[in-house]
Amino acid sequence: MGHLDPFFYPESVAVIGASREPGSVGHELLRVMVENQKSGLYKGRLYAVNPKAREPILGVPTYPSVTDLPEPVDLGVIVVPARIVPAVVDECGRRGIKHVIVISGGFAEVGGEGVELQEKLVEVAKKHGIRVVGPNCVGIVCPETGVDTMFLPYRKELGGRDLLSLPRPGPGNISLLTQSGAFGVACVDYMAGEGLGLAKFVSYGNKADIDEVELMEYLADDPKTRVIVIYAESIEEGRRFIEAARRTVPKKPVVVLKAGRTGAGARAASSHTAALAGADEVYSAAFRQAGVVRVYEVEELFDVTKALSMQPPAKGPRIAVLTDGGGAGVMTADELESRGAVVVQLSEETQSRLRELMDRGVIPPISAVANPVDVTGSATDDAFVESLRILLDAPEVDGVIVLPLHHVPGLTSDLPDRIAAEVRERRDKPVLVADIGQGEYGIAYRERFDELGIPAYPTPERAARAMVGLIKYGEALRRIGAL
Amino acid sequence: MGHLDPFFYPESVAVIGASREPGSVGHELLRVMVENQKSGLYKGRLYAVNPKAREPILGVPTYPSVTDLPEPVDLGVIVVPARIVPAVVDECGRRGIKHVIVISGGFAEVGGEGVELQEKLVEVAKKHGIRVVGPNCVGIVCPETGVDTMFLPYRKELGGRDLLSLPRPGPGNISLLTQSGAFGVACVDYMAGEGLGLAKFVSYGNKADIDEVELMEYLADDPKTRVIVIYAESIEEGRRFIEAARRTVPKKPVVVLKAGRTGAGARAASSHTAALAGADEVYSAAFRQAGVVRVYEVEELFDVTKALSMQPPAKGPRIAVLTDGGGAGVMTADELESRGAVVVQLSEETQSRLRELMDRGVIPPISAVANPVDVTGSATDDAFVESLRILLDAPEVDGVIVLPLHHVPGLTSDLPDRIAAEVRERRDKPVLVADIGQGEYGIAYRERFDELGIPAYPTPERAARAMVGLIKYGEALRRIGAL
Repeated sequence: MGHLDPFFYPESVAVIGASREPGSVGHELLRVMVENQKSGLYKGRLYAVNPKAREPILGVPTYPSVTDLPEPVDLGVIVVPARIVPAVVDECGRRGIKHVIVISGGFAEVGGEGVELQEKLVEVAKKHGIRVVGPNCVGIVCPETGVDTMFLPYRKELGGRDLLSLPRPGPGNISLLTQSGAFGVACVDYMAGEGLGLAKFVSYGNKADIDEVELMEYLADDPKTRVIVIYAESIEEGRRFIEAARRTVPKKPVVVLKAGRTGAGARAASSHTAALAGADEVYSAAFRQAGVVRVYEVEELFDVTKALSMQPPAKGPRIAVLTDGGGAGVMTADELESRGAVVVQLSEETQSRLRELMDRGVIPPISAVANPVDVTGSATDDAFVESLRILLDAPEVDGVIVLPLHHVPGLTSDLPDRIAAEVRERRDKPVLVADIGQGEYGIAYRERFDELGIPAYPTPERAARAMVGLIKYGEALRRIGAL
Repeated sequence: MGHLDPFFYPESVAVIGASREPGSVGHELLRVMVENQKSGLYKGRLYAVNPKAREPILGVPTYPSVTDLPEPVDLGVIVVPARIVPAVVDECGRRGIKHVIVISGGFAEVGGEGVELQEKLVEVAKKHGIRVVGPNCVGIVCPETGVDTMFLPYRKELGGRDLLSLPRPGPGNISLLTQSGAFGVACVDYMAGEGLGLAKFVSYGNKADIDEVELMEYLADDPKTRVIVIYAESIEEGRRFIEAARRTVPKKPVVVLKAGRTGAGARAASSHTAALAGADEVYSAAFRQAGVVRVYEVEELFDVTKALSMQPPAKGPRIAVLTDGGGAGVMTADELESRGAVVVQLSEETQSRLRELMDRGVIPPISAVANPVDVTGSATDDAFVESLRILLDAPEVDGVIVLPLHHVPGLTSDLPDRIAAEVRERRDKPVLVADIGQGEYGIAYRERFDELGIPAYPTPERAARAMVGLIKYGEALRRIGAL
């Protein structure tokens, strides 16, 4: 049991500031919890608090104040106006509630009086020994237990159609910590659409009490989390962050997207959070020391995270590329090399084993047996599987990107399973796949690889960047003596 | 009428080397043309040539030799084995056929005897005044007329489902020239899935006769083409390329992806084509002089092309960002600045007009009126529309990236149309949209913007890179004196 478990595994939750009015935060938040309870996802008890309501809201037992609650709930979710939040937290303390999420905004992020309100909130919480996530956040999503405080519209209308506006990912092994609530919401939507599974999501907002460092350490020991992703606009306690990361990274990778990396971005970041965004070089040095995998954009964030969530780190930078399309092989090599990976020169022995395949008619006579290995548009499933085996066996190769472009007539629907079987037998080296094409076959083909645990990407460059993420994690492990 | 029109607008086509055997090139190619004829897309006459077949193949009148064809067809598509191609081209000449596509491989790209065969092919063609696309290519796709020589499997099986393996894009204003056939096939699939419309596609293969330079000049005067995209692994005649590009660019943008930009990539490129890939710095200098927009990867290629196909070039590098999510605004600013665009400091007048909106309650009081302009999660449609108007009016702004992240409760389905109306009134500055989310609303929302002519992207960074493409085209126009 981790000390923050009640935030993710509560047996009872109270929504404090629940409302009858559809569209309001206090209504939408309660509605999601009610739906999750009805569907059997959230198995705990649920209460609502509203000073004006004695009747149940959305069928949930509702009480006029926190002190009236029939039990000291494991988790209080507070959505009342900022100015009464300290008083409400005080009531939570008196009722014996020890864990609260403060969704409400209007604290340090607005300056002036808000700063004082936040200090007051911290003081009251400390007095009662209450741990606080927030304020000014969207809170927590834990698909495993149905705890979900994202209060934004589930569905919205567009062009006369009622569409799912904010889908939630299914349970998975990726945990996400975010300073920006809006970006967190967007990430959840992105992950759901991309089929990436979520372990725990925390929007920590102004981090008045619990911050990214404490959350990272909690997740380091969370058996459900394989990859920790952090989106930060500022990290104040650099030393603490570095030390915590160095303890975490040997257990699992930490991927960080630090926005505000340029002058313009940093100015924007400091204007929209309460925090001052520091010089980017300082962050770069700190991240390197901490052993975290730094990424620079949204797509790269999830491409690298997907790779880390399914494949082992690369033990070195030497990558082999196996393709049926010469051009795509060239692009992969370009991106790998421009990002510091090594498009390794294959040994004489490896090349001779590949030439044997050619002699045996397994790969076409016009194949290129240098790296990239190009088995051409005449490739078959066997050509890919047997070439991949040779590359995975080669001691000079630390990882392989396979590009079995699906348009080639000789490839069948057996290939994903056969490649996955090959990879399973040789688990120590990472293998990623890329295929180009946004039509239905291309999409289904990549999904099949994903299901089999081989991360698949829609362009050569995205696969190359994901592989660079696996190389960086391997480097970090070596740097801190864990590999 | 351009001199290459018969390749795209033939009134009669003969498939030379047609076959009855499903899966063979000569069968699949004919099948696509037959389907296009049946559906009314291809309105011309269709013939097949096969020495062994007197009966119609796939219902198409079939003749034992080219000389037996009932008319000198506008376009001959040759799929016979390489060694008999010169003889077949000679027959085409004798039958009065002046335009042929040679799909067959086995020429210069395989070296040795293939080089001689290609020389022979050129010699015969020249003797008869025949123009040749290819050899070693997938030929031409023209959705406007139904000419389509892509012979790869239309559908393939995966997991027991029969899926569309190679969808074709609808008619549109993007034309694509590619040295690599396999990459061309992948691009067509990508464009179809992304909803990008195609004007003319040419896979020019070994460019024994017609090369990318001649095709670019033809497309420069093609009224259906708004953007020319070129994928090249080598460009031999640099001077001719530069001169042709400088004549083309004032009429329409030319986007080039030159693979083999790193040492590893270049080595790979020279091993898989007949051409030697030159030093990348030489290409960079030439592309700059030529005024082409150089891109470095597949996704960027189509993101920039989409922007150029819908929006005007930016007259300068000064970009404003308008967002309802602070983090997304920061990321956009980061990517713009790191790619050389200017996240412009808004003038006192512009900021004061934005503050007026705040005073009038149109944008929330906590909005940031510096650039990025952040109208926050309390934003409404009005907040976006009125802020965008001010930014488009500001003389210090050359283009705007709008990030109306759809999760925000105050935004309605009217927003895309209202933003488009605003942009239409102020056509001279480009506007791009980004929204994050791969769920159904996010996807439909971006499609709606696309339909309205406002290119929409799934991440802030991709929108920023697309805007950089519009800036580069504007710079190229100024550099060659056309803006």
